[in-house]
Amino acid sequence: MKAYLDCYPCFFIQALNTARLVTSEERVILRILKEVSVYLSQVSFDVTPSEIGRGVYRIISRLTGVNDPYKEVKESCIRQALALYPELKQRIDTSEDRLMTAVRLAIAGNVIDFGTSSSFDLNRDLEEILSQDFAINHFDDFRNALKNAAKILYIADNAGETVFDRLLVEEISQPVVYAVREKPIINDATLEDAVLSGLDEVSDVMSSGCDSPGSILNFCSEQFLRVYRSADLIISKGQGNYEALSDEKRPIFFLLKAKCPVVARDLGLEEGSIILLKRGEKRRFLS
Amino acid sequence: MKAYLDCYPCFFIQALNTARLVTSEERVILRILKEVSVYLSQVSFDVTPSEIGRGVYRIISRLTGVNDPYKEVKESCIRQALALYPELKQRIDTSEDRLMTAVRLAIAGNVIDFGTSSSFDLNRDLEEILSQDFAINHFDDFRNALKNAAKILYIADNAGETVFDRLLVEEISQPVVYAVREKPIINDATLEDAVLSGLDEVSDVMSSGCDSPGSILNFCSEQFLRVYRSADLIISKGQGNYEALSDEKRPIFFLLKAKCPVVARDLGLEEGSIILLKRGEKRRFLS
Repeated sequence: MKAYLDCYPCFFIQALNTARLVTSEERVILRILKEVSVYLSQVSFDVTPSEIGRGVYRIISRLTGVNDPYKEVKESCIRQALALYPELKQRIDTSEDRLMTAVRLAIAGNVIDFGTSSSFDLNRDLEEILSQDFAINHFDDFRNALKNAAKILYIADNAGETVFDRLLVEEISQPVVYAVREKPIINDATLEDAVLSGLDEVSDVMSSGCDSPGSILNFCSEQFLRVYRSADLIISKGQGNYEALSDEKRPIFFLLKAKCPVVARDLGLEEGSIILLKRGEKRRFLS
Repeated sequence: MKAYLDCYPCFFIQALNTARLVTSEERVILRILKEVSVYLSQVSFDVTPSEIGRGVYRIISRLTGVNDPYKEVKESCIRQALALYPELKQRIDTSEDRLMTAVRLAIAGNVIDFGTSSSFDLNRDLEEILSQDFAINHFDDFRNALKNAAKILYIADNAGETVFDRLLVEEISQPVVYAVREKPIINDATLEDAVLSGLDEVSDVMSSGCDSPGSILNFCSEQFLRVYRSADLIISKGQGNYEALSDEKRPIFFLLKAKCPVVARDLGLEEGSIILLKRGEKRRFLS
């Protein structure tokens, strides 16, 4: 998915929110916004929002010397999610359809996001998503694909959401490779966050080699690309990975909440929609 | 009032909304956003948002060749407001306090704005404001000042809102000078809009000489400045004029709805607040 015009102001909102996390010095924040201006005036918009976003967050790191502005935020989200884990596990244990409930929870965890918003209410948003209808629901395809898949790749999104991913991974009997970002970018999960969330106990955690807020294949490591190319089933979480992979021809299931108007429009859906979308099925579904 | 960091993303939102009014060519709109980027990377933020906004809108006019993107929008707002005029006049006629009701209506008309928002519902917003408590209400001072004033200057804000201003001007027995923008800027009222709203029948309409979305004195004509300096009472409508004049030492009453977080914060109020503020009274009121 390529960047839309609406991404333009949004990059400044993201830059402002993130800069304020790192510093209260208005002079520094203004300098960041001005450098983002120069960068955006020169960058091509024929790429994904993730790729441009990567450049924006690099400016913030360079000018503040802080490589992980969301470090504390991420740790707090993981702690909150871990505290919910027993209760969520019980929901799965007592549900009629364990896999369906785990999929719903994995999507629900996608409300944890600081790229599209600077605040959210985990408990309230969770309940809302758990009772929300899917705007696209290829669950039957997902269940079937899962039965026949030997090699499963799960591409993570945000820290904290990782704990919700773990619940889904635990419902999958085959080995799962769980791929995270190479370096901190927004509140996206890194190796450290995956381990803190207990993913290393239930999957093979690896870095994608990529440090953009979405797994742009050009930036991924050869090691990751081998896993990606040989996977029978790929689970892609969140908007960033959707932006990066929506045009790829691989057996990808996208699990996400459409949290911004741009991604919602690209999907032909209302903002706030939740989806389990099988790649290649989109046009057929919408026609 | 100087520009705040939050104005930075907002300038891009305004540029995007306005550019889309003029053209649907994404290539042209992207070029506008990129030129706005270059401009903002170079401009000083030690000035008012109005002054920076003027530069942003000039870029749009230069790149599209359209000097008045809001021409049709403005005419439509004036028509809508004129259709309401008889009913609003009747409200004043049947009210217990004509001046108070006229002041309320003048502030209510300030919901007509395309700088802070791309849409509003005139009828719904009107009723809301008419029943809303003032966050700052120096009405008694206003009534007294009005009794003792010989020379009254009324600085207009938006087209359509002009009709609501007319209702207040009609309650003032002394001659009123009604000042509008020199050239089209956003949906701000010009001479043409004032005449279309019937202001020329009840006041002396003049241009301020200024073409920014707020009467920045440095950009105003000598003729306007003479009126401004000799006025016993100045009524300033809307955010743009507040931004430009809030630090001035003149007998100014600001009538506005705080429609953006930046102006609300500068006033120390909640977004959405409505005020009738006497200049110089702010600190006393808030302490």
